[in-house]
Amino acid sequence: MAVNEASGTQLEELELFYEELRQANGHPLWVRDPNPPKVLPFLWKWSDYRPLLMKAMEVVPMEMANRRALFFANPGLKEQKSATSTLLANLQVIKPGEIAPTHRHSPSALRFVIEGKGAFTSVEGEKSYMEPGDFVTTPNWTWHDHGHEGEGPMIWLDGLDQPLVEKFEALFWEGYEDETYPLSKANGLSQRMYGAGSLRPTWVKYRDSGKPFIDYQRDSPMVNYKYAQARDTLFQLAKETEGSPFDGVTLEYVNPNTGAAAFATMACFAQLLGKGQHTKAHRHTGGTIYHVIEGRGHSVIGGTRFDWGDKDTFVVPSWSWHEHVSETDAVLFSYNDTPVVSKLGLFREEAYGGTGGQQAVTGTFSGKA
Amino acid sequence: MAVNEASGTQLEELELFYEELRQANGHPLWVRDPNPPKVLPFLWKWSDYRPLLMKAMEVVPMEMANRRALFFANPGLKEQKSATSTLLANLQVIKPGEIAPTHRHSPSALRFVIEGKGAFTSVEGEKSYMEPGDFVTTPNWTWHDHGHEGEGPMIWLDGLDQPLVEKFEALFWEGYEDETYPLSKANGLSQRMYGAGSLRPTWVKYRDSGKPFIDYQRDSPMVNYKYAQARDTLFQLAKETEGSPFDGVTLEYVNPNTGAAAFATMACFAQLLGKGQHTKAHRHTGGTIYHVIEGRGHSVIGGTRFDWGDKDTFVVPSWSWHEHVSETDAVLFSYNDTPVVSKLGLFREEAYGGTGGQQAVTGTFSGKA
Amino acid sequence: MAVNEASGTQLEELELFYEELRQANGHPLWVRDPNPPKVLPFLWKWSDYRPLLMKAMEVVPMEMANRRALFFANPGLKEQKSATSTLLANLQVIKPGEIAPTHRHSPSALRFVIEGKGAFTSVEGEKSYMEPGDFVTTPNWTWHDHGHEGEGPMIWLDGLDQPLVEKFEALFWEGYEDETYPLSKANGLSQRMYGAGSLRPTWVKYRDSGKPFIDYQRDSPMVNYKYAQARDTLFQLAKETEGSPFDGVTLEYVNPNTGAAAFATMACFAQLLGKGQHTKAHRHTGGTIYHVIEGRGHSVIGGTRFDWGDKDTFVVPSWSWHEHVSETDAVLFSYNDTPVVSKLGLFREEAYGGTGGQQAVTGTFSGKA
Amino acid sequence: MAVNEASGTQLEELELFYEELRQANGHPLWVRDPNPPKVLPFLWKWSDYRPLLMKAMEVVPMEMANRRALFFANPGLKEQKSATSTLLANLQVIKPGEIAPTHRHSPSALRFVIEGKGAFTSVEGEKSYMEPGDFVTTPNWTWHDHGHEGEGPMIWLDGLDQPLVEKFEALFWEGYEDETYPLSKANGLSQRMYGAGSLRPTWVKYRDSGKPFIDYQRDSPMVNYKYAQARDTLFQLAKETEGSPFDGVTLEYVNPNTGAAAFATMACFAQLLGKGQHTKAHRHTGGTIYHVIEGRGHSVIGGTRFDWGDKDTFVVPSWSWHEHVSETDAVLFSYNDTPVVSKLGLFREEAYGGTGGQQAVTGTFSGKA
Repeated sequence: MAVNEASGTQLEELELFYEELRQANGHPLWVRDPNPPKVLPFLWKWSDYRPLLMKAMEVVPMEMANRRALFFANPGLKEQKSATSTLLANLQVIKPGEIAPTHRHSPSALRFVIEGKGAFTSVEGEKSYMEPGDFVTTPNWTWHDHGHEGEGPMIWLDGLDQPLVEKFEALFWEGYEDETYPLSKANGLSQRMYGAGSLRPTWVKYRDSGKPFIDYQRDSPMVNYKYAQARDTLFQLAKETEGSPFDGVTLEYVNPNTGAAAFATMACFAQLLGKGQHTKAHRHTGGTIYHVIEGRGHSVIGGTRFDWGDKDTFVVPSWSWHEHVSETDAVLFSYNDTPVVSKLGLFREEAYGGTGGQQAVTGTFSGKA
Repeated sequence: MAVNEASGTQLEELELFYEELRQANGHPLWVRDPNPPKVLPFLWKWSDYRPLLMKAMEVVPMEMANRRALFFANPGLKEQKSATSTLLANLQVIKPGEIAPTHRHSPSALRFVIEGKGAFTSVEGEKSYMEPGDFVTTPNWTWHDHGHEGEGPMIWLDGLDQPLVEKFEALFWEGYEDETYPLSKANGLSQRMYGAGSLRPTWVKYRDSGKPFIDYQRDSPMVNYKYAQARDTLFQLAKETEGSPFDGVTLEYVNPNTGAAAFATMACFAQLLGKGQHTKAHRHTGGTIYHVIEGRGHSVIGGTRFDWGDKDTFVVPSWSWHEHVSETDAVLFSYNDTPVVSKLGLFREEAYGGTGGQQAVTGTFSGKA
Repeated sequence: MAVNEASGTQLEELELFYEELRQANGHPLWVRDPNPPKVLPFLWKWSDYRPLLMKAMEVVPMEMANRRALFFANPGLKEQKSATSTLLANLQVIKPGEIAPTHRHSPSALRFVIEGKGAFTSVEGEKSYMEPGDFVTTPNWTWHDHGHEGEGPMIWLDGLDQPLVEKFEALFWEGYEDETYPLSKANGLSQRMYGAGSLRPTWVKYRDSGKPFIDYQRDSPMVNYKYAQARDTLFQLAKETEGSPFDGVTLEYVNPNTGAAAFATMACFAQLLGKGQHTKAHRHTGGTIYHVIEGRGHSVIGGTRFDWGDKDTFVVPSWSWHEHVSETDAVLFSYNDTPVVSKLGLFREEAYGGTGGQQAVTGTFSGKA
Repeated sequence: MAVNEASGTQLEELELFYEELRQANGHPLWVRDPNPPKVLPFLWKWSDYRPLLMKAMEVVPMEMANRRALFFANPGLKEQKSATSTLLANLQVIKPGEIAPTHRHSPSALRFVIEGKGAFTSVEGEKSYMEPGDFVTTPNWTWHDHGHEGEGPMIWLDGLDQPLVEKFEALFWEGYEDETYPLSKANGLSQRMYGAGSLRPTWVKYRDSGKPFIDYQRDSPMVNYKYAQARDTLFQLAKETEGSPFDGVTLEYVNPNTGAAAFATMACFAQLLGKGQHTKAHRHTGGTIYHVIEGRGHSVIGGTRFDWGDKDTFVVPSWSWHEHVSETDAVLFSYNDTPVVSKLGLFREEAYGGTGGQQAVTGTFSGKA
């Protein structure tokens, strides 16, 4: 809201008034923080972070960390260590033989697998092996653990709505009595149940009996959306359709019970940019985290060019103009808080009106904010 | 509602009153039709109907019929020629080279393919070739035509909500100016768009621009649910799960945009009964039409045994006890009006309480009502 | 759907085929009933029906009738004795001291009070005294009884969705063990709970514990919408707004828990036509029953003029052009099945395109169909 | 989430790693802020703030402030100046003859009137005069201004969801070209339209034509919920019902179009505590701001006693035990973010399990955090 300037000789009187107000735990509407926290467009290089993860495996024992994960800290957010104002993005690494013990929490989490083979996530009694490109869900209040039965480090990107949940002071966390949770279903069963298009098993209840509820109309019942299926579908559809002028051929990972976002709080996407494709610019509310699954190109965000390659991660802030340019066929994973923004009546979208619908590039991202 | 008997000497006076009321286009609440129309359990044999379809090809020209289709007429429904009170089931046959010309109507229709190869349905500019076992949708107010580029007769089951639409006096029908509607999409495109599990194309609008609207949140945007995918999923899941005690492993063909029934008015299912399986009996509101895709067995409906085999069609009336027994692996297709029943608050379901949860068989269906 | 004519010498062969088909309980798509049941516009005069009700009190004992009610039988519907295809309208009369004993049923019922004072409806333990113009609800599966503690006959209009419920073969009915149901709430409590605008009691549950559920998000929890409040609001708003060109100032009786129709199956309205007002014509799907609360005027339905006065009842069929002309200030009550029509995607509406948006009158209703 | 302690000699190595990570704009999951911002229970006295408002009228010109409003700043929230983590509460004062000029913004605002007469709020062309106890809505993106045609200062409590909107970086603000917005409706019209219980005007559209939309299914169309009506209903219902054991007789100010919360983001309540009433304790997610309309008593929040009287304002944080004790008949206004908490699947509620369901009091609020 508008803030006007104080004028003339009133200033001293005003300062006295402000001090009195401060004593009463009050604050004047029209005096605003001149430099509030604000999400900045930013990019974290895989080439910086993979070595950091290797070092973390050396110096950080699992007993200390519970999860050996490194947050991406948006430099515009100051004390808040998160990628956007509402979402976390962090890289997690697990060694062969390690177990990230069973717990559950009110924040929902996604895993997007980057490197390795043989690790699994187990969610509410279903174990699912993870491969690069897989999108794995551990929704609000589901028991989950991770383990690694293969060779070499296993690395994935975690996405969580934790800053949002903390905003509502609704963070709950519980550790399970044992390290692992008992398996009660065939490995990867939900994949067969919901992986065949537009077919829904009729005998499955939407809600478990617990309280607070896990609600499979609120959050997806599908543990692992395999990359092979998403990738094949993207490349097939790109032969037959244009997709969106702003986003190309984009698939949303949806909750099969509702067709809506995979989580009540996060929408998640896989997107194919064909070699040489240059999308139109647009902006919308809802801050988005992008992760490059494969390929090389750049995005123009608010006039600045951000070059990206395999496994880099970057942020497009809410209401920032953005467009993508691909030098190779490229597949991007992304997630954002638009399901919440929409439910609150705060979603807005605008196409860029400039020449050709694309921005003039006025700078290049240097690695610093 | 309860109807009491008139008593004693009042009858003559009553009759005079009734006549006076009749003159005034009135009717007493407590005088009910003693034998109102009522859906009966019934079965139509493929062995009776295939010859009838062959004869229809000889004697019924397309110009006369527009669609060469034979209704199953439930004998309990008297003047109303339909399989259940709300739904049509009919067999349609088309010859090589014929075209069932483009039209659209407010009733929604499904096609379940029984025999033949090379015929197609085209819906709103997407052409889809049909094979036995395919489930094809032509929802409310979508332009559609059928044609046949192959050899031999092509036969399918049509399911329509027309009696329901007529009940509301909301039947609209329109012929297209040309025999066929222009194709604007890759053949079978919607299959690739929605056939990969739990992935949703983000660039597609839910509604077309017309008025009255085609609404793809109301009715499915997927033209053809291929049998191969449904069948594979059923047999795979049957190895891993029990499914429902009443229905075995059952998949609903859903609208990928909502996870709800494929049509606002009809829910559609494919169901696997393993060799030797004998389900528990239950009853629920919502009359159901079953079609045997493959296999042999029988169902017990209200105590009567109905033997069925390949391509037979039978009806389980609303609120009738029913259970299924399979002699071979059997796959059944079925559809019913439960989406409407549920929306109106009229859905009820009850498990059979008798010994072992299964009915005593008190008779066998003879082919007559 | 289109029906073509058979041509030439094939007729005999066709007849043989039709007979064979009939034997197999089949019917050809293209042979339609030339004269199917169809709702006609119709009007029932209060001056005819009040005497019939008086006679009914003499000749029809409560023990025989359970409810002493006379249906309006639309002459176009043939064997079906109802006002429209989906809805009943009937006049019910109760004598001082009589009780219409407690029962419940899956059809929902409304009562619109016409004459008398001192009678009450009791719904799920809340007793509510009725006065002329009151709109009273007894939704799906709620226990209810009526009694009369005053003088003279008490008469009201019943509206029920019973033909619709019967269409789905989902009619359930149950008598209570006692004549009256125990009272558990202050008389008319729901009126105070929901009668103050846009305020909702927070301690009330939407559902009772029974099964099948009474669901107060599906059907209204308000037993009696008093006429005084509706009438005052209508006359006040008419001073300040135009309302709709087709319907004037119209208020819907809504479910306060949802703002939607009072019943899952029926929408109910009170409407003020100012003296001399002549509305524009339109048509929409959904057959409507009108009841004249007070005033005198006429409606033009499909070109025919229907004159009405105090307490008359008339039907506007689905998709019929209609407009209203008022000679005095007039208040109409009406109800229709549009909530269902809308949920099924069958709602259509059209403004009349003729000169001035009003129909030419081509005839006057004579009292006969 | 759990944070473990680092052990032994690894600390130096860890510190080096942390520094390297910091350089790469990263942060370890397991190192958490030991003292993060956190909503504290707090109470602001009217006797402190009324003098501050009087002084503000002297020293703060309208040209500087646009709105002369003083925020309640929860001492636990540090740099964020708001009452709870998601909601603002502030007192606003306006002098006779002043105008708070027309603007609109994406945060929704409520006004709860405390003192004065003759001032008005005008929303989207409807002017509504305000009296003490009135609850006034200016939803997301509605044009609104305030003016004062009476005598003496006019004071109200503003409640806004602005911290929530800012969290999503979705704050939009626009000033109108003129000081006041043209009036297009009768003064206070929406009060007559929606103030009569459970009656809905049928001719009103839910959405205006603008983009971004004002959506009257999302936010209430009722500008002013008059206190007289709410107060009468509370006192009447308290004679007939118990209400909730935790909250007594409580009415929610709802959106008449949906029966849901008045705003997509805020639920608002009026609550009567009878003289001598002592409620049971419970806790739930969703931080709540209470304002004492009239009466005297205290609340026990997390074991601490907060004494309150006329026009005081206090905060019950999310997931804090709380119960109320009233020395006189008391009416409280309150608002919270539970509509959002519920939509996100984060709502939890728990009854206090201790003796008699009420807390032991372990301290008394001293006026300091």
